Amino acid sequence: MEVEAHPDLRSLACLLGTWRGEGDGFYPTIEPFRYSEEVVFDHTGKPFLTYRQTTVNLTTGLPGHAEVGYWRSGGPGRVEIVLAHPTGITELLHGTIDHLDDGVALHVRSTDIGLTNTAKSVVSIERSLWVERDVLRYDVAMSAVGQPHQPHLSATLRRV
Amino acid sequence: MEVEAHPDLRSLACLLGTWRGEGDGFYPTIEPFRYSEEVVFDHTGKPFLTYRQTTVNLTTGLPGHAEVGYWRSGGPGRVEIVLAHPTGITELLHGTIDHLDDGVALHVRSTDIGLTNTAKSVVSIERSLWVERDVLRYDVAMSAVGQPHQPHLSATLRRV
Repeated sequence: MEVEAHPDLRSLACLLGTWRGEGDGFYPTIEPFRYSEEVVFDHTGKPFLTYRQTTVNLTTGLPGHAEVGYWRSGGPGRVEIVLAHPTGITELLHGTIDHLDDGVALHVRSTDIGLTNTAKSVVSIERSLWVERDVLRYDVAMSAVGQPHQPHLSATLRRV
Repeated sequence: MEVEAHPDLRSLACLLGTWRGEGDGFYPTIEPFRYSEEVVFDHTGKPFLTYRQTTVNLTTGLPGHAEVGYWRSGGPGRVEIVLAHPTGITELLHGTIDHLDDGVALHVRSTDIGLTNTAKSVVSIERSLWVERDVLRYDVAMSAVGQPHQPHLSATLRRV
């Protein structure tokens, strides 16, 4: 039985599905890299989306980053995201969701980042995401390992 | 091809697998409840375990809590856990892992809890977990919604 999406998720429903594509990573402390990515947004009938993401480094062919968590409505025009990273980081973001002709634009910024004792230092994370029909684009900026807040990732995915 | 577990996970390897069982929930602000639970620990060859958990309230038959995240070695005898809850909470825990004759005992306490604007107030979370062969028991204590730190959950699961 297919469960209907919770009405609070109306603004986020266009994210639902499996998305695949490629992106570019860059930061002053690393060599630029290209990666493939799979993102899955799902729901259970409750007022949040489940989210999981994995990447593969296209230079090395090895598994890259991963993250899991939940995307929630934060009231009209607002979104809240809670994430865990296997690198020992928790990420809590708040921001806005704007309606486009054929999708939405999200802009969120970290309001709490938790770091385990063995995690790299991350100070701020900012995520912008655009969905238009079956195309999802996103940018991630961050301040980490002593560097000022700046672009880190940019990717384009398609719904599969 | 089965990937071998990362050597850093030696102390946590006995968690790997799917666990099912039942538990009791209690807190001064709620009616006591009994729940069924499924926990899955997996790995990808990297130095962390993936973790996901769901419960069903046995009184109502409805989906209850869920959480996802990663469990990491924090060096010899130490463990680090990063979690996201769909209720708008991120949870970061540090603690100890002790070897038993047939398993391990973990004791961790929150060092950072992130709350979205719409989340309930949670101040501290403490988790104790014992694995002996194919039995996993855990207790969770917390300080939340203005209450002092105290027991909240207790469950016994079996490896399936």
